[in-house]
Amino acid sequence: MKVLVINCGSSSLKYQLIDMSNENVLAKGLVERIGIEGSILTQKANGRKYVIEEPMEGHKKAVELVLGALVDENEGVIKDMAEISAVGHRVAHGGEKYAESVLIDEDVMKTVEECAKLAPLHNPPNIIGINACKELMPNTPMVAVFDTAFHQTMPEKAYLYSLPYELYEKHSIRRYGFHGTSHKFVARAAAEMLGENIEKLRIITCHLGNGASLAAVKNGKCIDTSMGFTPLAGLTMGTRCGDIDPAIATFLIKELNMSEAEVDNIMNKKSGVLGISGVSSDFRDIEGAATEGNKRAELALEVFKYKVIQYIGSYTAVMGGVDCIVFTAGLGENAIGTREEIVNGLEFLGAKIDKERNNVRGEARLISADDSNVKVFIIPTNEELMIARDTKEIVEK
Amino acid sequence: MKVLVINCGSSSLKYQLIDMSNENVLAKGLVERIGIEGSILTQKANGRKYVIEEPMEGHKKAVELVLGALVDENEGVIKDMAEISAVGHRVAHGGEKYAESVLIDEDVMKTVEECAKLAPLHNPPNIIGINACKELMPNTPMVAVFDTAFHQTMPEKAYLYSLPYELYEKHSIRRYGFHGTSHKFVARAAAEMLGENIEKLRIITCHLGNGASLAAVKNGKCIDTSMGFTPLAGLTMGTRCGDIDPAIATFLIKELNMSEAEVDNIMNKKSGVLGISGVSSDFRDIEGAATEGNKRAELALEVFKYKVIQYIGSYTAVMGGVDCIVFTAGLGENAIGTREEIVNGLEFLGAKIDKERNNVRGEARLISADDSNVKVFIIPTNEELMIARDTKEIVEK
Repeated sequence: MKVLVINCGSSSLKYQLIDMSNENVLAKGLVERIGIEGSILTQKANGRKYVIEEPMEGHKKAVELVLGALVDENEGVIKDMAEISAVGHRVAHGGEKYAESVLIDEDVMKTVEECAKLAPLHNPPNIIGINACKELMPNTPMVAVFDTAFHQTMPEKAYLYSLPYELYEKHSIRRYGFHGTSHKFVARAAAEMLGENIEKLRIITCHLGNGASLAAVKNGKCIDTSMGFTPLAGLTMGTRCGDIDPAIATFLIKELNMSEAEVDNIMNKKSGVLGISGVSSDFRDIEGAATEGNKRAELALEVFKYKVIQYIGSYTAVMGGVDCIVFTAGLGENAIGTREEIVNGLEFLGAKIDKERNNVRGEARLISADDSNVKVFIIPTNEELMIARDTKEIVEK
Repeated sequence: MKVLVINCGSSSLKYQLIDMSNENVLAKGLVERIGIEGSILTQKANGRKYVIEEPMEGHKKAVELVLGALVDENEGVIKDMAEISAVGHRVAHGGEKYAESVLIDEDVMKTVEECAKLAPLHNPPNIIGINACKELMPNTPMVAVFDTAFHQTMPEKAYLYSLPYELYEKHSIRRYGFHGTSHKFVARAAAEMLGENIEKLRIITCHLGNGASLAAVKNGKCIDTSMGFTPLAGLTMGTRCGDIDPAIATFLIKELNMSEAEVDNIMNKKSGVLGISGVSSDFRDIEGAATEGNKRAELALEVFKYKVIQYIGSYTAVMGGVDCIVFTAGLGENAIGTREEIVNGLEFLGAKIDKERNNVRGEARLISADDSNVKVFIIPTNEELMIARDTKEIVEK
């Protein structure tokens, strides 16, 4: 069975074709600048790179070219579109309705459209991508895999804000959490690496990238996560402020005469490690600057690590302990020093890093010492594979 | 030495006269409705209650009446105002300048005035109270005791928000924390009850009242606290929302067409346990409603306890462990069931409550079991005494 995984942005489309018999990636590609001058498709397959530069007025044209590239006589990996048994679509927001991935039908599309008010930047392009695929592959089953679904098992006490209850009831204001597919993937992988049943484990998954979030996964279910109503909340990120006193938002409007759009822009685009350091939103740049003695770059890293340690403490408390901590995503997989310092900051858990094991980038492995009270892993995330697995499971039901 | 402690609000004034030779309260009183029709002074001294109902056009008149009541032939406790060796004033905000209490002079007054922009509701009446006292007791030394001072030892990584650094540099936007006098008082008292040097202890102080905050006190110094730039942040409170995704503030403005003043009002006055339960901001009412089966009242208590547990986890992590947890303030001292459930939620620490010891209100005592890995105390707070002690120490220097 071959599954096509699609992640559609407003002017981009990422895809992978995965052979589920062995979970091998047959082809992966990226379409950029859809609807903009300079549209380009880049596919990697069979160890070769295939580039198509052609005007694409919309996502339907982009999907057409993707399918064309996949079946291309020289550069393709399948002979016929019919070999694609199912398509798995990444969808940002499933609201409260979807705690799991789901076969796409008209009802599902309606809900995804309703949820667009909660994810105005992400759900609309996801919908466009689904519709384009449905037009071109009307008989192929499509599955929606939501970035919020894994977190839907949170109890009320974790997802409800201490705001007037009507804001939850009438306007759906609550914690949703994001990066769910990634948290789910690495939590399951950690249980496998431990050789234990996930239903008996307390795992903290640290998805640390330019966007960053933690999740507390108890007995296989997410019970809390650091992102909130939006992906702004929680940790210090590349450009996002994470948790701050909410009164600061209104202070900026009232005292500094900013508009609410300016405040949003500051909190989302000009904050995080970029805001503190003034250097960059890229942790590699900031690490470089810190090494050269830039105090604010150093401070940005300090604040970032401090917040990760705080959340690990918080989630340890609410799970009644922790068996295993997982680092994933760009920074989690690659920032050797940051990982080490975070684990060193977990002395309350008796966590100990093995410096040699930790001296690696992007490889799934145990990095805690043998006498560590808690197992610590790096596990490269693979959201596309998780989407493909969910898709396969659902269409085979 | 006798110290007069003054806590001045916009239309009220609380006071205590304390004999520092034995720390006995000689008289305590409350003036209400200053500048409003129906002004009234109520003093308790010598086991008697003394009430003065008299128009008070301003705080100077109120202080005059306070001094009159203290030296009153029948109802007073001193013969002459000269017996008051010093006055200790509670001041809400000392900004970054004051990490300790300070003898009031012109420079101090200037700073307190500058800090009014950070505490627009509280510093101005504090200033009025100080000026009234200075006019009537021009030769008596006055000391300012700041609600923020104890938290000034926080490291940068704890007080800096992940916002553009300029907002900190130019507009003083950072975490300050409040309730400092209370956290300081109970942390010191806990060390005394343990018979240990506070400089070797890691203490988490839980000031749980209608306003609520936690502090992490390591080696006698505050290293983190849950309130932030304003007293809105942190825990769920009576009517304040505490930590929420800051994007909710701008969402309410953008999507629900609220003004920033309405959002402030919701977050400060209509949220917290009142907002969730819809019942009351008073925890006793909510506990009552929950007992009668009100689901939202139950939920409000769940959310409140959950957040306290999360912060205890977070502060345990950043201190590298915890030796002692202290409950204080209205709820902390009196809510037997809530205390028990919080301690029961700390299994990750090996904390154990002793139900019999915990079955008490407003009394300083150990409430953890003998085999608890962490000592848990109730310690009634006494901000007035802390202010008097600081005042004595400073004027005797």
